[in-house]
Amino acid sequence: MPNSRPRVGVAGGSGYTGLELLSRLAGHPGVEVAFATARSDAGQPSPVPGLNFEDRASADLGDIDLLFCCLPHGAAVEWVQAAREQNVRVIDLTADFRPGSGRESAAVYGMIERTPADDVAAAQLVANPGCYPTGVIVALGPLLDEGLMDLSRPVSVTAASGVTGAGRSPKRALLFAEVFGDFRAYSLGNEHRHLLEMRRALPDVPLLFIPHLLPVARGILETITLPVAGGVSAADVRTVWQRAYRSSPLVRVCEQAPALADVAQSDELHLSAFDNVGLEQPTLTLVVALDNLGKGAAGQAVQNMNLMLGLNPGEGLRRAR
Amino acid sequence: MPNSRPRVGVAGGSGYTGLELLSRLAGHPGVEVAFATARSDAGQPSPVPGLNFEDRASADLGDIDLLFCCLPHGAAVEWVQAAREQNVRVIDLTADFRPGSGRESAAVYGMIERTPADDVAAAQLVANPGCYPTGVIVALGPLLDEGLMDLSRPVSVTAASGVTGAGRSPKRALLFAEVFGDFRAYSLGNEHRHLLEMRRALPDVPLLFIPHLLPVARGILETITLPVAGGVSAADVRTVWQRAYRSSPLVRVCEQAPALADVAQSDELHLSAFDNVGLEQPTLTLVVALDNLGKGAAGQAVQNMNLMLGLNPGEGLRRAR
Amino acid sequence: MPNSRPRVGVAGGSGYTGLELLSRLAGHPGVEVAFATARSDAGQPSPVPGLNFEDRASADLGDIDLLFCCLPHGAAVEWVQAAREQNVRVIDLTADFRPGSGRESAAVYGMIERTPADDVAAAQLVANPGCYPTGVIVALGPLLDEGLMDLSRPVSVTAASGVTGAGRSPKRALLFAEVFGDFRAYSLGNEHRHLLEMRRALPDVPLLFIPHLLPVARGILETITLPVAGGVSAADVRTVWQRAYRSSPLVRVCEQAPALADVAQSDELHLSAFDNVGLEQPTLTLVVALDNLGKGAAGQAVQNMNLMLGLNPGEGLRRAR
Amino acid sequence: MPNSRPRVGVAGGSGYTGLELLSRLAGHPGVEVAFATARSDAGQPSPVPGLNFEDRASADLGDIDLLFCCLPHGAAVEWVQAAREQNVRVIDLTADFRPGSGRESAAVYGMIERTPADDVAAAQLVANPGCYPTGVIVALGPLLDEGLMDLSRPVSVTAASGVTGAGRSPKRALLFAEVFGDFRAYSLGNEHRHLLEMRRALPDVPLLFIPHLLPVARGILETITLPVAGGVSAADVRTVWQRAYRSSPLVRVCEQAPALADVAQSDELHLSAFDNVGLEQPTLTLVVALDNLGKGAAGQAVQNMNLMLGLNPGEGLRRAR
Repeated sequence: MPNSRPRVGVAGGSGYTGLELLSRLAGHPGVEVAFATARSDAGQPSPVPGLNFEDRASADLGDIDLLFCCLPHGAAVEWVQAAREQNVRVIDLTADFRPGSGRESAAVYGMIERTPADDVAAAQLVANPGCYPTGVIVALGPLLDEGLMDLSRPVSVTAASGVTGAGRSPKRALLFAEVFGDFRAYSLGNEHRHLLEMRRALPDVPLLFIPHLLPVARGILETITLPVAGGVSAADVRTVWQRAYRSSPLVRVCEQAPALADVAQSDELHLSAFDNVGLEQPTLTLVVALDNLGKGAAGQAVQNMNLMLGLNPGEGLRRAR
Repeated sequence: MPNSRPRVGVAGGSGYTGLELLSRLAGHPGVEVAFATARSDAGQPSPVPGLNFEDRASADLGDIDLLFCCLPHGAAVEWVQAAREQNVRVIDLTADFRPGSGRESAAVYGMIERTPADDVAAAQLVANPGCYPTGVIVALGPLLDEGLMDLSRPVSVTAASGVTGAGRSPKRALLFAEVFGDFRAYSLGNEHRHLLEMRRALPDVPLLFIPHLLPVARGILETITLPVAGGVSAADVRTVWQRAYRSSPLVRVCEQAPALADVAQSDELHLSAFDNVGLEQPTLTLVVALDNLGKGAAGQAVQNMNLMLGLNPGEGLRRAR
Repeated sequence: MPNSRPRVGVAGGSGYTGLELLSRLAGHPGVEVAFATARSDAGQPSPVPGLNFEDRASADLGDIDLLFCCLPHGAAVEWVQAAREQNVRVIDLTADFRPGSGRESAAVYGMIERTPADDVAAAQLVANPGCYPTGVIVALGPLLDEGLMDLSRPVSVTAASGVTGAGRSPKRALLFAEVFGDFRAYSLGNEHRHLLEMRRALPDVPLLFIPHLLPVARGILETITLPVAGGVSAADVRTVWQRAYRSSPLVRVCEQAPALADVAQSDELHLSAFDNVGLEQPTLTLVVALDNLGKGAAGQAVQNMNLMLGLNPGEGLRRAR
Repeated sequence: MPNSRPRVGVAGGSGYTGLELLSRLAGHPGVEVAFATARSDAGQPSPVPGLNFEDRASADLGDIDLLFCCLPHGAAVEWVQAAREQNVRVIDLTADFRPGSGRESAAVYGMIERTPADDVAAAQLVANPGCYPTGVIVALGPLLDEGLMDLSRPVSVTAASGVTGAGRSPKRALLFAEVFGDFRAYSLGNEHRHLLEMRRALPDVPLLFIPHLLPVARGILETITLPVAGGVSAADVRTVWQRAYRSSPLVRVCEQAPALADVAQSDELHLSAFDNVGLEQPTLTLVVALDNLGKGAAGQAVQNMNLMLGLNPGEGLRRAR
């Protein structure tokens, strides 16, 4: 009975996040994709067989149950307003309604591992988390809850992301010949806009966040220097994670440090913790890996959609190979 | 009068470090390369026009003034002994005589920016510094001297290196198809062997060192979280560096964070410092870039050679483009 | 009734082909993986959840219905003999029983698009085609059948393959730092061993085959210069292909030239043809793309398995995204 | 007497070709760089120490002896006109005055290995050859002269170039995430604009030219299928090349097929030829390698400049390492 499947639309489907989401939706048996908009790619084929991109004017919100916004940051506000008027629910993959945006009260924060499933299921508007914050919050959230961290010292997060994290708009700094063979830090000074989101989710944690641009297409690795209270070991951290994520099939606690290759093309998030020798102040190292387009964007959006539409929670998700 | 030029030999010339060194020596007007050994590449052409690699048995230490050891770690000890017997001076690019090796008393540590030039000039045996330590020690040495650091908190160094840093011996983990698209941390637990060298050069600094493998051929980026005493700013750090390195043409203090591409294929080392907002405990971020095969190995070896042989100190070195 | 599913084993499961095949088998609902052998990785986890690699001695041929050989070339002969003695059917992904091997009479050549499905379905031993030949034979086979080619002039095939095509055994030429930024031709002189296989499948076609090594992990692009009879156009070629492959869902005839990115990670094979201006002798250009690990190895092996075991022909295959 | 050095200017210095040229000019002892223009990078530092890019309005043609045009194709015409009015000589690296442009009569074609040095030395305007044509013409020119080719059959040139060949203007197709892991043919149909240039230099040669985009920053490999007259062997080809290029230090005739890595970052061009077995019609394979930014652009421009200004012909050029 395909006619009974919920119908979804995607605003901004031809960026990297939109393409990745459409690819997942195309293989999801529980939904039907009604439209995907794309300004400059209107008329071109989308990843959904038989569906071409169309421009915004022809997208019919009245035809769908749920809208995904995969637009540039700032551009979702208007779509969300239009959707609300038509009583269409929204999963917004931009930063527009995330914690720290000033509009967060209008949305449920869709951090699957931290937000009650009932809240997501009932939401009209879900703010899908940012890629960098997903790794940091999934790693640190339970440790903060359990009091393992020493909050008197900064927690430094050195993060590295593949280039798709910077979007698909042509910019010189993202050209192949600029990035090939290079590696660089950016947003120095602790002013990356994702910090707002992380701080709201991890109150009182003194975060120092240093992002880097990797010469790969996709994937995020976050290496965290974690001050802990005396006596807390990496084994304690793993135990807390195991307990917190025992019902989270996409979160894996690893003995070895995960690498980009372990999670590439998947919706999984891998966690690891290590004791360090030779330091007087107890400090652990955490290594977190996820795919910025998977768990960091489209994968988590599908998780949110599954909850909102009452579908099988694991449907349409990609496991690591 | 080419006959009057000092003659040098290279033991282990067909690894990445050896090839890079031979390429520099080939273009150096002040020396002549007498031989380059290579076990499995004997008979193959070397980067020095007209010079083929030869096996160890045919290398004549009596024919040279200076020997470079570019061997696997552990293999230099025997060569150094043989050279000493023939009164041949040595620059050792392995870890065998570096600080922390247990043999450091037999060598002068050839960290150009930190060791008195007279000591190098007079040395029989110079231990050429490791690639990772070069960046960390050049960055932190003057700050330690000047008392800018807060030694009560760990200094975390998140470092990323291109694959040539791991040598040219075939190993599965270094195959193209394994590294391509990947990024990974290694030597977790604060046990990397370069820590010994760093700790000797930076006594009392509580170092946490976390290396990563980058999917590029060459280059090192070190991102350092630096606890400082109250009131110390990034501008203070830059001032100290400018003063310390005013006579070091290969060290550049940058306003912007340097990237791998800025130093690739060169012998330069670029330093930068940044203040961080939003942290109660004063903490700076330093970003250091160098080429592991350049300043991190062959370039610094040429600098040491120039001093030992009384040549022009800047001869044979490569500037950033 | 999971017990009724056929059971399969994989000999040599930790190379690139073996891993890719196991990944597909793990997601295939119609079979159960009984074992996967790996000499040096015995005891390590395989891509099949819960299944560790084991060494050959412990692999029980009596426990399976079908064996895949993903071994180095030359090593399958012995396994095939052992399987025959136990009446176990085999899909051999090595070159050992391919056309031109001298042993081809013992096997059915499993070129899905060219061999009658009944022959594969009934085979005791299937020789899974080589990666390069798959593209060339799928492209040229129907054109030869239909008499479109001018066989009096050489057909030159310039092919480029990702590095996984060369296997996972550590060799210097396959190290990341050797391949990164490089591109090279190899097997010059028209002596690549895949030519035997191509010539048997395309009798009387004067093939010139020039392979190249691409700095990517996976994928094959074959650019073919095709002499045609007067009046034959690219449109004619497309028409012949459309007809020949109307029942082959994994073969797509494209208007635009396909690229590696179009087929990466998939089991599809994309074909295109172009007329050339400015030449007196009618000559077309064909561009063929496939993933060497997908349609060029594991994907086609799964297609063969589906036929041999009477499963859904499209099960366990990966579509292009 | 630095004041006596000729002064040069560069129009369009911040593209890949302009940067590469400025890097060579910065290290050239025989000239002084007076200015380098760049529209959007005006005020930014150039590769010449102490020289910032400036906008066109402030560039003073009256201050220089020679102008280089590194502009987008089409933009050189106006600069050349302005230079002529001020009696300033020009080396134009665009296609605007190359053979086939319709303006070729106004310029000397600066193909160093094929144009008489006196013609270049006396020229007011030199059209610097295109990157692809340089390899093809250097390879085929002497073979055409000596009558080794069979002109009754097409010569197919399958070429692959690094991404810098496509310029530095931001376009989606050149973004890192689009090119990474990809390989694609383009300009299918034998209509690439470089064909005009090649055909003028190689009259009566039936060329089929098929370019590809490589996922590397720089370098060109051209694999040529060459119909030859009966009895002509690869050894004959090498002999002709050796004779033709005995005075061309940047052209090397190799026994092994050259690869991108052999010529990267250099101004050399490497040639090789191979006999093919199994073909009735005698057909050789040629493999040619050069760096599109080196011999294919900036390196050849410096060669032309050296001739025009009466400098040492080998000054400022980069040898392969």
